[in-house]
Amino acid sequence: MIKVVILGGGNVSYHLTTHFLENTQVELVQIFNRTIDKILKFKDKTSITTNLNELKEADIYIITVSDDAIATLSSELNLKNKLVVHTSGSVSLEQLKSNANKGVFYLLQSFSKDTEVDFSNIPICIEAERNEDLLILEKLGRSLSENIYFIDSSQRQKLHVAAVFVNNFVNHLYYLGNDICEENNIPFEILQPLIAETAKKITNLLPFEAQTGPAKRMDTKTIKKHKAMLTKSQEEIYTLLTNSIYKTYGEKL
Amino acid sequence: MIKVVILGGGNVSYHLTTHFLENTQVELVQIFNRTIDKILKFKDKTSITTNLNELKEADIYIITVSDDAIATLSSELNLKNKLVVHTSGSVSLEQLKSNANKGVFYLLQSFSKDTEVDFSNIPICIEAERNEDLLILEKLGRSLSENIYFIDSSQRQKLHVAAVFVNNFVNHLYYLGNDICEENNIPFEILQPLIAETAKKITNLLPFEAQTGPAKRMDTKTIKKHKAMLTKSQEEIYTLLTNSIYKTYGEKL
Repeated sequence: MIKVVILGGGNVSYHLTTHFLENTQVELVQIFNRTIDKILKFKDKTSITTNLNELKEADIYIITVSDDAIATLSSELNLKNKLVVHTSGSVSLEQLKSNANKGVFYLLQSFSKDTEVDFSNIPICIEAERNEDLLILEKLGRSLSENIYFIDSSQRQKLHVAAVFVNNFVNHLYYLGNDICEENNIPFEILQPLIAETAKKITNLLPFEAQTGPAKRMDTKTIKKHKAMLTKSQEEIYTLLTNSIYKTYGEKL
Repeated sequence: MIKVVILGGGNVSYHLTTHFLENTQVELVQIFNRTIDKILKFKDKTSITTNLNELKEADIYIITVSDDAIATLSSELNLKNKLVVHTSGSVSLEQLKSNANKGVFYLLQSFSKDTEVDFSNIPICIEAERNEDLLILEKLGRSLSENIYFIDSSQRQKLHVAAVFVNNFVNHLYYLGNDICEENNIPFEILQPLIAETAKKITNLLPFEAQTGPAKRMDTKTIKKHKAMLTKSQEEIYTLLTNSIYKTYGEKL
């Protein structure tokens, strides 16, 4: 059994907690948070505390607090020779301010408290200063998911930007599409099979090969017609992305 | 049985043909194309022709040629009192130049010849000048899919722009994400569960509610760090979309 303490009470903490509590390979010995309210619901399942001086013995201490709070919280820990990891995509390993052994346990998924997450295929990106710690993190990762990757701090930060493009920005394009539908009394659900197919297509094809549409073939007539229908801010995005697609194919084909 | 003639030999023609040939409610009586090569493979399944004067009797003539060719081809047809429809998202009903009765049969999906398409949940947007033709198109639509929508020419053109945002532009963001991964020796597959989850999330939540990330919370520290990692053209897109997200929440929250 891998003994784990979770620090923090946000979405990552919540999802890790619920999965560790059902996990036969992991013993969740404690949850720490500065305030008790967010972790109170687990009081019958494991030890909970708001006092860093009461941290229990464990193999891994997982810091799940927000990026800005990682340095401060880690500097308050006195866990020499223990393994302390954070779960952030954009914070480097060095930003753990601790005399402990350091590592990263980054789950590449977008968590909301209301949505159950299937952990079995979540990519988990691990990093550690010491090889033996990497092996423990790998074991912990494999108890949750089949997709474990060794990703260093520099790669992880790049990956985090890439995730912003394919998750945050993609969702914003859904929002803009939804907006255009609403303005014209079109049910947004009409677009959902296309959205699903677009995401599915790139599991077999590279995005470069999967591209279609007026921008790729520089169909200026359709592009002009489209622009005339858009608001100024919609048009700005339309134009920049259209030019970027055109440049991609103009230069590479 | 609804008797159908398909005009054109591209992707839409191909997919409609293969589905109509298996459809017990539809008799595909003929395929026309200006050149024989693209429709030759169906010669044992139905009548094929390159001669507009040899068109057979049917209930519906479906024009599947490219947007630019619709006006010309339709003007060459002599199908008075017959129903002629096109399958384009961005061409209005009026651009059918014909003495026939006019309609639109628009399948809202991105077709590639190599990828089999599940028609059962494809949205089909129909429009016709006459109510009785709308009913025939509805019947034809329901023989293929459960999702039939009555969408007029103005709405359809807006829908087509919205589809560009959620399909063409989204795929380009996948491309940019893939590019960042490649530059840093990160396998793109790491991002695929996140991509799938992002698309899935908006079947339950509005995109406005599903938004997460540094732009939404105007996490300027992370945004600055991200920008520093990007090429000039990646950064331009990052900045515009980040500002657009921020404006969306700054104004609406």
